[in-house]
Order: sequence, then C-alpha cells, then structure tokens
Amino acid sequence: MIVSLAGGVGAAKFLSGLVRVIPEEDLTVIVNTGDDIELHGLHISPDIDIVMYTLAGIVDESKGWGVKGDSFNCLSFLGRLGCETWFKLGDMDLATHIYRTNLLRKGFRLSEIVDMLRKTFGLKIKILPMSDDRVETRILTSAGEFHFQEYLVKRGASDRVLGVEFSGVDEAKPAPGVIESILEADAVIICPSNPIVSIGTILSVSGVKEALTRSKARKIAISPIVAGHPIKGPADKLMEGLGLEVSAYSVAKIYSDFLDVFIIDEFDAHEKDRIEGLGIKVISTNTIMKSLEDKVNLARVVIEQTEL
Amino acid sequence: MIVSLAGGVGAAKFLSGLVRVIPEEDLTVIVNTGDDIELHGLHISPDIDIVMYTLAGIVDESKGWGVKGDSFNCLSFLGRLGCETWFKLGDMDLATHIYRTNLLRKGFRLSEIVDMLRKTFGLKIKILPMSDDRVETRILTSAGEFHFQEYLVKRGASDRVLGVEFSGVDEAKPAPGVIESILEADAVIICPSNPIVSIGTILSVSGVKEALTRSKARKIAISPIVAGHPIKGPADKLMEGLGLEVSAYSVAKIYSDFLDVFIIDEFDAHEKDRIEGLGIKVISTNTIMKSLEDKVNLARVVIEQTEL
Repeated sequence: MIVSLAGGVGAAKFLSGLVRVIPEEDLTVIVNTGDDIELHGLHISPDIDIVMYTLAGIVDESKGWGVKGDSFNCLSFLGRLGCETWFKLGDMDLATHIYRTNLLRKGFRLSEIVDMLRKTFGLKIKILPMSDDRVETRILTSAGEFHFQEYLVKRGASDRVLGVEFSGVDEAKPAPGVIESILEADAVIICPSNPIVSIGTILSVSGVKEALTRSKARKIAISPIVAGHPIKGPADKLMEGLGLEVSAYSVAKIYSDFLDVFIIDEFDAHEKDRIEGLGIKVISTNTIMKSLEDKVNLARVVIEQTEL
Repeated sequence: MIVSLAGGVGAAKFLSGLVRVIPEEDLTVIVNTGDDIELHGLHISPDIDIVMYTLAGIVDESKGWGVKGDSFNCLSFLGRLGCETWFKLGDMDLATHIYRTNLLRKGFRLSEIVDMLRKTFGLKIKILPMSDDRVETRILTSAGEFHFQEYLVKRGASDRVLGVEFSGVDEAKPAPGVIESILEADAVIICPSNPIVSIGTILSVSGVKEALTRSKARKIAISPIVAGHPIKGPADKLMEGLGLEVSAYSVAKIYSDFLDVFIIDEFDAHEKDRIEGLGIKVISTNTIMKSLEDKVNLARVVIEQTEL
C-alpha cells in the first residue's frame, strides 16, 4: 500500500502518472483541505476536486482545475445578482459543490462524501481529505489577512506575505484512515505540491507528522521547486514571506524530520550535496510534467525508490 | 394601489400585460409558495421565479418557466453524480436558487430575498411571497401522497387525485405586507391561476380570506378554465379529484365569498347567468393570451372593471 500527500494541480498531474505505474487500488491519497472555501453558501474543496477530476480524466487540462468543456452560465448569472465571481465555478463543477454541500448539511462527513464521489467517478484510488473538520489557510499580508483563495485568486498573490496560519487546525482531527494509512503504508510519497499551504497544511494536522516519523514506510518527496521557482502557484512568495530560501534544499529541510529520499529536477543537480547533508538521499531527474510520458517517467523513478 | 394574487405561468402572462396598462409601481403581487421545493439542498420557489423572470423579460417563453437560452450542464452533471433530474433546473436559473438558499441560511426571510431579487431584475412591481413560513402543497392520490412538484413534474399528473393538503399552513403567517396590501388596495385581481393549488393555497394562509372579505377593494378574477379545460396545468384533475365540476362557474363558486367581478372567456359566455346567480358580475372576453396584444387587451378589460 502506498500513501501520498497531495495538494492540487502538481499532485494531480503526478498521480495521473503514478496510477499508470502501480495499481490504482494500492494507492491512498491524503489531500489538503486548507484551501476549502464556502462561496455562495456552497462548500468548495479545490484540491480534492482537482485530484478527482484529473484522475477521472475530466479535468480541464489547459487550466489544471475545473471540468473539461465546462460552461460558466450560472456564475455569470450570480454576477448579475450581485455576487462575487472571482472564483471561477463552472456549471458542471458546481454540481459537485451542490452535491457535497447538500450531503454535508444532511450530516455526512466530508470523507464519506469524497468516497461516494470517487466511486461515482469510477476511481479505485482511495481519496482522504486530511480532516473532516474545517481548517482554513489564512495568509497574513501587508494588506491584511486573507483566506488563501482570496490571497491567491481574488488578489492574484500580489500582497507581500508576512505569515501563514492554519485556522482551526488545533481542534481538527485527522479524517478516518489518515493516521492508520500512513502507519501501515509501505511507502509514502509527498507529491510536488506547495510545501507551505498544501503539504504544510496536511503536516499541521494533529498526529500526521508523528505518524510519518513513526511509520516504517520509505518516505519520498518530489520537489515542487525547480531552479528556484515553483512550477505553478505562489510557493515562492509564501516561502520568501516566511524568510525561507526558495530552493529544492529549502523544501527538503521542511521535510527533513521524516524524509528518506528527495527527487529534485536535473536543473537542481548542483543542490544534491547540500540536501544529502540533511541525511536525505537525493535523485535528480526530469520533474517537469508536460506530457503523459513525463508523468509516467517521474512516477517510475519514484516507485523505484520505494524499494518495494 | 392594485394587489393581485398569482400562481405561475398563467399569472405571469397576465401580469406582463397588466404592467403595460398600469404603472408597475402601483402593483403588488402576492405569489403562491406552496409549490416551493428543496432539491439538491437548494430552495426553489417556482411561482415567484416565473413571475420575476417573465416580468424581467428573461423567461423562456416556449416553456413559460426558466431563463431564456439557459443551458442544463449542472443538472446533467448532478445526474451523473446520481441525483434525481426530473425537475429541470437550468444553469442560469440555478444561480437564483443558490442565491436564495444562501441568504435563507444566513437568516434572511424569503420576502426580503424576493425584494432584493426583483430590484436586481429592475422590477418596480412589488412581489410578496404569500408567507415566509414553509407551506407545502401535498397531493393525495391513489398511488400515495406527493409534493405537488412530484405529482405534477415527476409523475406527470398521472395519478388519480383524492385530496389536497397545505402542509404547515396552520402555523404559517402571511408575509409582511400581505394582509396590509389587501386591506389598503383599491382593487384586487385574482390572476388566471389554478384555483386549488395556486390561488387556493394563498387563500388558505391565515387572515388572507378575511382580508379579502373586509377589504373595500373591488375584487376581480380571471377564469383559468376555458370551455371546461385549464389553459395549462392540472387544474382539471385536481378539481375533479375534489369532486368539483371543471368549469368557470366552479371557479367563481370557490371565490364567491369575496368576488365582485369574474372575467370568463367568450367560449364560456353561456355560463354567465349561472355565475351571476352567485351574486358576481360577469364579463366575457378573450382570455387566451397568445400574443402580447392578447395580454394587454385582457389587462384593459380587467382594469376597466376596477372602476378606478
């Protein structure tokens, strides 16, 4: 059994390669829900949906999120009614949010709903939200404090970051199966996701870091930073804001308490010695996933390191 | 000030003629909410939306409900997720339901939300739900008891009707302004709507019938039954189920406690004497509204009878 920790687009791309290398049913993905947001009274779980849509083959690949070929007629009309429309919700995508919100209000837990959804989408991979409790990633900036989605999407990540908080995380329990799957895993893969607001959020949930340290699984991470820049998203701005160097080394350091192997891009091969100084084995390969072949090749390199 | 009681399609058609004959701001419409239904966790108010969309000029005229040119991508996707799709919710239309549901959950009353919506749609006509409390029209049939929408839309009005109940009506208070507007009106117009499950529902709300009786306004109704058949909808099946003759006379009799003038179709001119026997003045004219001209002409006949 392989467990992976995942954020959104980068993780989903990697996972779509991984399920072509190992049987889907051998895989459990623990997904960040700190980005979850309520908009128009609907509960939106961006990272979970990106992972589901991508693995189901219905994601809008040009954007990395949303449903392929979706229309935006509901959102336009919401705009006409005076609602904010900065978060782009497609009509088909909205069905997922309506479905999830309806079941949450009926008392179902997010993890139960995600399990129903992934089955409906025909996925054999197990998808676990990091927690059924609300954790909200708040970005403290020079312009004020914002929900991560407001910081990123509404304000275009243009504010100087002063800090990151995971509101609610002290009270949040890991979702059923999160700790158990890490403890029982043969290998844990940290996807190439934002180390602060995707993986960092999951690691902040009570018991997760301890489970990673205790687990006998080989722990392998893929760097989301290549040549000092994130492939996608605001990881550089967040890392800088927290006074961190924006580099593969810096990511490895965040994971150094538990990490066995770090996969870096060949552009960053010069960082190898420095990272190995943290007691982490380093493999350099192409980590930029443009084609399916890239994804599958990266997954093969990772799986090789599991030593299973 | 003119007050009208309204159901859905027939009422909306008539009102779109009426606002061309008298100033929109002189008009208050009290709308049936017994057809309201919660689907996918969203609060849907079919009659209110039909009236709003029609007066805003954005209704799908071929159907009489929904938004012109709407798509149904969200509903298709909901179907894919295993949800029921018998109630046809368009993508633009869904924005109204999402907006309303969100505000209801935030503690706004339906009447407040309807007022915000009608202003957003640029309407000067005042639109009042009959009640802010939930009243649910239940149809008792030989196949069981159903929500009105289930009886009508899901089951195609194919079950033999045994009775009609307005669940919750005993506890429901009229929405703010309902009783006051009737008491202060110069004229009250009963739209050509279903006398049992549209107008009948409004009349069943505590105080409405009494207000109509006490009000000095001239009360004029337009028959929704022409030549023994409803123009649209299941009024005939409901009336038959309740042991009523399906005729203009029968509708007049339902309203006879308060009605001054009954407008019947010229096809039913032979019913005039019988209806006048109820102490109601009868005018026969064309009541079938195919063109805008038909609607305006009918509105003129009605306004003439207000004697204002």
